[in-house]
Amino acid sequence: MVHADSSTFAEGMSKKEVYAQVLEQAKALFEGQRNWICNFSNTAALLWHAYHSLPLPSSAVNWAGFYFVDPTNASQLILGPFQGQVACQVIAFGKGVCGAAAKTGVTQLVEDVEKFPGHIACDGASRSEIVVPILKGGKVVAIIDIDCAELNGFGPEDQTALEELAKLLAQSCDF
Amino acid sequence: MVHADSSTFAEGMSKKEVYAQVLEQAKALFEGQRNWICNFSNTAALLWHAYHSLPLPSSAVNWAGFYFVDPTNASQLILGPFQGQVACQVIAFGKGVCGAAAKTGVTQLVEDVEKFPGHIACDGASRSEIVVPILKGGKVVAIIDIDCAELNGFGPEDQTALEELAKLLAQSCDF
Repeated sequence: MVHADSSTFAEGMSKKEVYAQVLEQAKALFEGQRNWICNFSNTAALLWHAYHSLPLPSSAVNWAGFYFVDPTNASQLILGPFQGQVACQVIAFGKGVCGAAAKTGVTQLVEDVEKFPGHIACDGASRSEIVVPILKGGKVVAIIDIDCAELNGFGPEDQTALEELAKLLAQSCDF
Repeated sequence: MVHADSSTFAEGMSKKEVYAQVLEQAKALFEGQRNWICNFSNTAALLWHAYHSLPLPSSAVNWAGFYFVDPTNASQLILGPFQGQVACQVIAFGKGVCGAAAKTGVTQLVEDVEKFPGHIACDGASRSEIVVPILKGGKVVAIIDIDCAELNGFGPEDQTALEELAKLLAQSCDF
């Protein structure tokens, strides 16, 4: 199979089926490859094209990617591979939705980012967000960050699938 | 300015104006930030949105991003940050268009990828390609790779601008 086909999602699939394809393709792509930059880059592509194959609100996802713990400052996140528009380079632990996930190690599912204390607007179009920490040996090493231009873009089904993806990334990559 | 605005390009700009904005925004984004993963990720976003603001063939760009020299094997490239569909994880120096640029340290401007010996089809839709090496201390550390779904997607104007961008990335990032 040509690599690009991994991120081609058939029309009319359910969200459950789309996430199943993301996880299956991610597992296949990570076989024999443990470089986290390579694997995060391909995963951002899988996620972006997955959301854009679904109906609204998922198709209104306007950013899908990663931040990782800054190797020069362990109390901040730094921008990793993503798809979407240019984004903030660094985010302090505890600041905004990404910072909260990094500090607590707990998924942040935010229906309306404007109601989230200290929300960082890298893109004024974003309305809702989900941030899932990637933990290795009990420590946050990176986060998955997905933004949506509609309110309530994400729910428990997204959380379950992205937490499974975060576990897979932690197991499959060397950081 | 909100970060996402860096990659918003006004309608009706010429290719020259669009590349000037890419270089100007890249310089601004790299100020005070030398992490290459962060800077390459934002640059891929700048390039993707730049091409998609232009008329055909530029708007048919279907992949924009980077490969870097694999830290575990200095004779192959490994996938870095990009925008577009899932891509090949590793490419041997000398193999295909990316591998030729990495081996020779010279830009590869390919009007028709199917006529390039040993072309690697990560995406069967790609028809033309430009690959620009990023050199640090005389050695290739990474490459910029742009694919287009139309023949003759790139010309001397693209080469000049992307070579300037490659120099900026080499100067601005620690690898």
